[in-house]
Amino acid sequence: VSDTDASRTIEIHEALLGKNEALAERNRAMFRARGLTVINVLSSPGSGKTTFVQRTIADLKGRRRIGVIVGDLATDNDARRLRETGAPVVQIVTGTVCHLDAEMVARAAERVGLDDLDTLIVENVGNLVCPSAYDLGESLRVVLLSTTEGEDKPLKYPSMFQTADIVVVNKIDLAEAVEFDREAALRAISDVAPGAQVVVVSAKTGVGMEAWYACLEHRVGR
Amino acid sequence: VSDTDASRTIEIHEALLGKNEALAERNRAMFRARGLTVINVLSSPGSGKTTFVQRTIADLKGRRRIGVIVGDLATDNDARRLRETGAPVVQIVTGTVCHLDAEMVARAAERVGLDDLDTLIVENVGNLVCPSAYDLGESLRVVLLSTTEGEDKPLKYPSMFQTADIVVVNKIDLAEAVEFDREAALRAISDVAPGAQVVVVSAKTGVGMEAWYACLEHRVGR
Repeated sequence: VSDTDASRTIEIHEALLGKNEALAERNRAMFRARGLTVINVLSSPGSGKTTFVQRTIADLKGRRRIGVIVGDLATDNDARRLRETGAPVVQIVTGTVCHLDAEMVARAAERVGLDDLDTLIVENVGNLVCPSAYDLGESLRVVLLSTTEGEDKPLKYPSMFQTADIVVVNKIDLAEAVEFDREAALRAISDVAPGAQVVVVSAKTGVGMEAWYACLEHRVGR
Repeated sequence: VSDTDASRTIEIHEALLGKNEALAERNRAMFRARGLTVINVLSSPGSGKTTFVQRTIADLKGRRRIGVIVGDLATDNDARRLRETGAPVVQIVTGTVCHLDAEMVARAAERVGLDDLDTLIVENVGNLVCPSAYDLGESLRVVLLSTTEGEDKPLKYPSMFQTADIVVVNKIDLAEAVEFDREAALRAISDVAPGAQVVVVSAKTGVGMEAWYACLEHRVGR
């Protein structure tokens, strides 16, 4: 592989990102035309995305008609957990691909049955790096940070947190057990993502989730 | 971007992986010639890699002369923590790149001062997907799984766990707080990585670390 090939790789990568950008805009226009709120949920593996989405669906039952697209490298574990809520769920198996892209979401959206929905939650592949560069056409980007991961993660993975509309600090019920330094974490988030709103929750116990719902309604309206 | 471009991207990606493979073999030959044990440490962000490496260096003082190469997208937080151990530490800042590669490690190894070492620990970028495909020329690949991440992570990120020589279940001190199902986690690991040795530790409290050191000595000898 020559340097020419390497620079050609970067070129093609940028072209693919450009192509994704165009497809994301097409998704966005389609979602808007339907009056659909689309939420892209991102985090590390194991930060509690699935539990967060599960509780959101259960708590907003009667207020929002929610469908879910969930991406994983392998297994339908999360899809099965999410289907227990009664919401329609479409699984995308990415194989070795570390992120969802706009085209995958467009195809999955056709299968989820958008006519019956006003809200679509996309649970991305667990990864704090790759998915940040891929716009899916979402209305809102929500990045989760678990108290168990350490307060400095926003500083260490800035590209992800910089793109967040809302940062959800999750697993606050474990704060004491992991000696979580709340001030340090909030400082790290505001250093990297000064424009993001921050809510502190436990998706497991439900603490703080009302603030997330208020934040959601405020951002997207109805 | 045409389909031809897309397939050319895959072609070039495979060529780059092939190039990495060749450089990894060169690293491996160089490390072997020096009698150096090289340990590639991988996990999600926040699974406790840095604490694990810190305690390993401290506990093995007098038994192993350890140097560290640490990769991060941004910040030198981990490098600063690791330098407190007194070990030589070289930081690689990857920017937006989600993994270390053999060439980065070859360059960093020149700076770390291999003459004074018998062991080199490479703390990879926190990511359960991308780094698995990049051989660095290591003697041993160690993948951490934190009890806080959920028992099914090996099933959901199989490519990473399949490449592990040793799987370290970390943060066992939090097992009760997170209702960790040890049997389910061990079953998931052995389903995906039947050849890997498994040790269960708390790098924070030190519990189980002796089993890791025994495992290390057994695998690499001295």
